Amino acid sequence: MENAAAAPAAEAPIPDFDVYPVRHTIASAGPWSSGTELRWSDGHTSRFHGLWLRDNCPCPNCVNPVTREQVFDISTVPEDVAPTAISVDEAGALLLNWPDGHESRYHPGWLRAHCYSVPATAKIPVTTWGGGFDIPTFDGRQVLDDDKALLEWLEALRSTGLTLLRKCPLELGAVEHFADRIAFLRETNFGRVFDVRSKVTPDSNAYTALELPLHTDLPTRELQPGLQFLLCRVNDATGGDSIMADGFRIAEALRIETPEHFRALTTLPMEFRNRAQTSDYRTRGPAIRLNDNGEITEIRLGNFLRGPMRVAEQDMPLLYAAYRRFMSMTREDRFRVSFRLNAGCMAAFDNRRVLHARSAFDPASGDRHLQGCYVDTDELLSRIRILRREPANGTV
Amino acid sequence: MENAAAAPAAEAPIPDFDVYPVRHTIASAGPWSSGTELRWSDGHTSRFHGLWLRDNCPCPNCVNPVTREQVFDISTVPEDVAPTAISVDEAGALLLNWPDGHESRYHPGWLRAHCYSVPATAKIPVTTWGGGFDIPTFDGRQVLDDDKALLEWLEALRSTGLTLLRKCPLELGAVEHFADRIAFLRETNFGRVFDVRSKVTPDSNAYTALELPLHTDLPTRELQPGLQFLLCRVNDATGGDSIMADGFRIAEALRIETPEHFRALTTLPMEFRNRAQTSDYRTRGPAIRLNDNGEITEIRLGNFLRGPMRVAEQDMPLLYAAYRRFMSMTREDRFRVSFRLNAGCMAAFDNRRVLHARSAFDPASGDRHLQGCYVDTDELLSRIRILRREPANGTV
Repeated sequence: MENAAAAPAAEAPIPDFDVYPVRHTIASAGPWSSGTELRWSDGHTSRFHGLWLRDNCPCPNCVNPVTREQVFDISTVPEDVAPTAISVDEAGALLLNWPDGHESRYHPGWLRAHCYSVPATAKIPVTTWGGGFDIPTFDGRQVLDDDKALLEWLEALRSTGLTLLRKCPLELGAVEHFADRIAFLRETNFGRVFDVRSKVTPDSNAYTALELPLHTDLPTRELQPGLQFLLCRVNDATGGDSIMADGFRIAEALRIETPEHFRALTTLPMEFRNRAQTSDYRTRGPAIRLNDNGEITEIRLGNFLRGPMRVAEQDMPLLYAAYRRFMSMTREDRFRVSFRLNAGCMAAFDNRRVLHARSAFDPASGDRHLQGCYVDTDELLSRIRILRREPANGTV
Repeated sequence: MENAAAAPAAEAPIPDFDVYPVRHTIASAGPWSSGTELRWSDGHTSRFHGLWLRDNCPCPNCVNPVTREQVFDISTVPEDVAPTAISVDEAGALLLNWPDGHESRYHPGWLRAHCYSVPATAKIPVTTWGGGFDIPTFDGRQVLDDDKALLEWLEALRSTGLTLLRKCPLELGAVEHFADRIAFLRETNFGRVFDVRSKVTPDSNAYTALELPLHTDLPTRELQPGLQFLLCRVNDATGGDSIMADGFRIAEALRIETPEHFRALTTLPMEFRNRAQTSDYRTRGPAIRLNDNGEITEIRLGNFLRGPMRVAEQDMPLLYAAYRRFMSMTREDRFRVSFRLNAGCMAAFDNRRVLHARSAFDPASGDRHLQGCYVDTDELLSRIRILRREPANGTV
């Protein structure tokens, strides 16, 4: 499809914002199957199918140079499309000619970064923690003012899942400033910013003075909020300490200690419900979610937000045994850190990984007021990529 | 755990808002395993484990009567907890006594609704459609003013995934009124309400005059927006017709016609990317998602928002063949409906199921301005439950 928007006449490749350093050069390029085989200077071999190469042509006729979105339609070329000529130009880029006269030029660093001839080994950069964890602590004002401090905070959030910010502003709604530093917040039925304090007619146990057992927030939603921020404005009440645990650490221990329970919680769905006067949320999903590599990617847990379990009769005892085991592990000191949120301190954590709780407090003994909000994981990861984006694009 | 919030002295069960009609009565109740076996008046047998029954005690000591959230902790009773006495009271409810003196009373309609002795057979209430589909059409003003009209519209959205609303208000931002009728909208990097018109420096192909091939919106996010609303304020340009297809219908046809392609698109992940100056979204997931019952639950497709595919070398040709087959099916008349959105008309559709497209238009020939927003599936389903909630609770 021809690009109707203004496109430069030159066939300059479209930078995709990422830098692809040329650590290895293309030693030779030749035909392979319908596509191309590259031999690299370090001895590695990459094989790319013809369709994959045609699909990824970065020229301004195939990718809209303004939106950087593809306009080429892969179904407009034959399934066995193969280059008619393969070469490496003087700058080290791969040049391909196609039967219809189209020409494609690929940056060698980009090609190497997208080689699929070896299985991807990238692991999620996660560091789990247990009792005695020294929670990474940041200066709230610096995070608000300085992009470098912001990036450090966000990377800590991604790797450890739990951080504290001190010296945060105390005015009402200040918690949203931190969400604004990432992108925008995730609204819920509890509002954009929610107030955690003892209320007269609470619509959640969070808004009572009750002890709250370790849980993730909003397990009743298909997508649990990614990040949770809780900024303490005042905490003069007796009790009301914060308790946190790394759900990934507990799940890893469960995997080793009672693998049958781990298997149950990754395969048998739990039921989650939250019913109020004006909303009625229900979802069904495993307490522990794995990705295709078997890595733990998510915990979903809220004892007070469960619905009646619904699995096959013969699976019910195992699901209960596994769930009880996980719940009792959340109470073991080896997994728990506890601290007191004081005025101006904000806890920021990965809500799909870190379980949080608070001890009961005495609302008559003094004020306790936290403000909270959520930001989704997509926004965290996008913001980290943007803050890391280097100005030069490294095109050859 | 004792409930610290005010609780009624009586052991009245906590209504959970739903009505459970008593279509069958409990004929007899006796011990089974650690729990209870019920024989029903229609001959059905239900078996409930002791832990399940204890877990679901609806009394005000186990469920906070104000928040309706559970405060009982299942790990505080023995794994083999079993009732010491089982009876049916004069109102037909099941009464259980527990070793620690606790007493539980269960509504028979609730018990029957939550019986897990037979596999759940509930199917997603979906009606797929193809070319020639007569799109359910509603009066926008009625939907804004009347809850009955609202419920009819939302149920049509859930079952067919595509609806039209006529006579909608034309003022700027009016599209948000429809989101407000459900809950709140889903914000994205394109704003709370987005404007679809030809822009000078577009950050998406949507904001050009280009043809847009059939796609879901925001396939680059972990959770694609559930509902999309597109309200036309003016459409005086030549071209720019709307084209829609039921992705579930196409996927079902693919499942029958080329099952190997269906299998590929449900198991091999695709890569989705959207990079702009201030955001960089990436996700990985199959084009067709199934639930545990093999039902199609989601389509993820956007040719212009793909990243380089990354699957094993030997799987790459199959993934391309399957993707090309799906793309070419989206262009077959048997699946497509096309219509013209005129001023005051709003298309509302399930963005995780219905593919939408528009033909290229000539921005010089006249104005074309649509405003859009998203609402998530959780909110749609919650709102339907609330609108259907009957005033009486049917407790016995």
